[in-house]
Amino acid sequence: MSMSEQLELVSANRSHGGWHKRYRHRSRALDCEMTFAIFLPPQAEVGKVPLLWWLSGLTCTDENFMQKAGAHRLAAELGVAILCPDTSPRGTDLPGEHDSYDLGSGAGFYVNATREPWKAHYRMYDYVTEELPSVVRQHFPLNGRESISGHSMGGHGALILALRRPGHYRSVSAFAPIVNPTQCPWGRKALGAYLGDDVSAWTQYDACELVARGASRQPLFIDQGDADDFLDEQLCPERLEAVCAEHDHPLTLRRQPGYDHSYYFIASFIEDHLRYHAERLYAKR
Amino acid sequence: MSMSEQLELVSANRSHGGWHKRYRHRSRALDCEMTFAIFLPPQAEVGKVPLLWWLSGLTCTDENFMQKAGAHRLAAELGVAILCPDTSPRGTDLPGEHDSYDLGSGAGFYVNATREPWKAHYRMYDYVTEELPSVVRQHFPLNGRESISGHSMGGHGALILALRRPGHYRSVSAFAPIVNPTQCPWGRKALGAYLGDDVSAWTQYDACELVARGASRQPLFIDQGDADDFLDEQLCPERLEAVCAEHDHPLTLRRQPGYDHSYYFIASFIEDHLRYHAERLYAKR
Repeated sequence: MSMSEQLELVSANRSHGGWHKRYRHRSRALDCEMTFAIFLPPQAEVGKVPLLWWLSGLTCTDENFMQKAGAHRLAAELGVAILCPDTSPRGTDLPGEHDSYDLGSGAGFYVNATREPWKAHYRMYDYVTEELPSVVRQHFPLNGRESISGHSMGGHGALILALRRPGHYRSVSAFAPIVNPTQCPWGRKALGAYLGDDVSAWTQYDACELVARGASRQPLFIDQGDADDFLDEQLCPERLEAVCAEHDHPLTLRRQPGYDHSYYFIASFIEDHLRYHAERLYAKR
Repeated sequence: MSMSEQLELVSANRSHGGWHKRYRHRSRALDCEMTFAIFLPPQAEVGKVPLLWWLSGLTCTDENFMQKAGAHRLAAELGVAILCPDTSPRGTDLPGEHDSYDLGSGAGFYVNATREPWKAHYRMYDYVTEELPSVVRQHFPLNGRESISGHSMGGHGALILALRRPGHYRSVSAFAPIVNPTQCPWGRKALGAYLGDDVSAWTQYDACELVARGASRQPLFIDQGDADDFLDEQLCPERLEAVCAEHDHPLTLRRQPGYDHSYYFIASFIEDHLRYHAERLYAKR
């Protein structure tokens, strides 16, 4: 095993009969040290288990979902491992990297940056599609079946990864995702900085654009709170609804009355998502 | 309603069909502004519900349990409100108050301090037994039935409150409680500072001492992880086990293999505690 594939255990907590573990490793894709967390259900002690990827939102690390979503209980029951990457490169100090919550650290947007100063490190798309999958396959008892979910910026990440990699994920879901980043302030700021002014380069990272291209038929399962402060300006699920209707792309979009953008919203509906993914992760096909 | 009984809503999150709400109010007992959180289950929209008090541990605020314990799901199902006070007075600046994690802010130990500089503010026993109960009775649809639980310093708080107030709480439980603060470093530091050198004044705040006095027959339900870093030096459940055996006091002490002191431990077993309390809160007697 090469140096770059070694993992350093940061912490381990017994949880619901399984283990929550955090690891540090040297990322080649990002050229920095990264931390990720994995929940291993009890079933992983006697055999290989399927994996749910969770991509977090702006300002988050590997910890938010693990601590606040209440997901371990049902993942332990269903026999599903959960992997939480961090949301950006860390330990670097690029110009402006730490100045705002929606660009730079904590805001990788799951893209491969092509512009200075970002391009040397901000390659989160490669990190979560190539490097980290290879790392976890080597170190944990996973059976190769994967699904993906996420929240807000991470919901965007889950949708674009699933749409760009047809057949790779057994299922995809999202909580309050940014579905049309090329057209909202968060997305335009980040994509402009990471990819430059040529908007045609942005569309490969936009769920609405990818659905319109028809590259994948992956069904999309989304929960969105109707009291979410970011609903109208940043999230705009009606745009995805319209493009899915136009292109006959399978979409289940549930509007949850009274729910906001917080982890209380996620915790309230994580059970439905875990059951949705587990059914597909354990289905014979 | 007097000024001191007014509540200012800090935030509200829909959660599991109920509401998680945080309030600020002026505390007379503590002579400062305090924040608390309450989870109101869906049943509270149509009638009065019983209340579970949760007392948190060192360094915590009203937020830790609400965010990390995964308790809302089952509380919503069972129809139990949950109240989380803060762990000390806030907004004051007494000499040394913010210098260490185990004394002063975040470390009220649920006692009434009698020594300078603490005694003007550090009256958490009065706050959680008198003032805050009166406040929540006025503002929320509660039916008067109460149980209590807590973690670490808050487990100590739950045990001493239940033992000192026989008949008041329908049930008491604790996660990794400090059962014998007069004999462990955390307790001796805090009780010495708040109450002075006369150890006889400390014993009213020590669960082992209270069981030995036989003031209450309240059954005690405790979960303790056997991989808890604080087990041998600070928590010492075997001392409570011995005194309960000697005085024939009902105790259920479960040692949970591999679990540590974290909220992952609490989340793993909160369901058992919520069911235990709900059964007693809803029992006719």
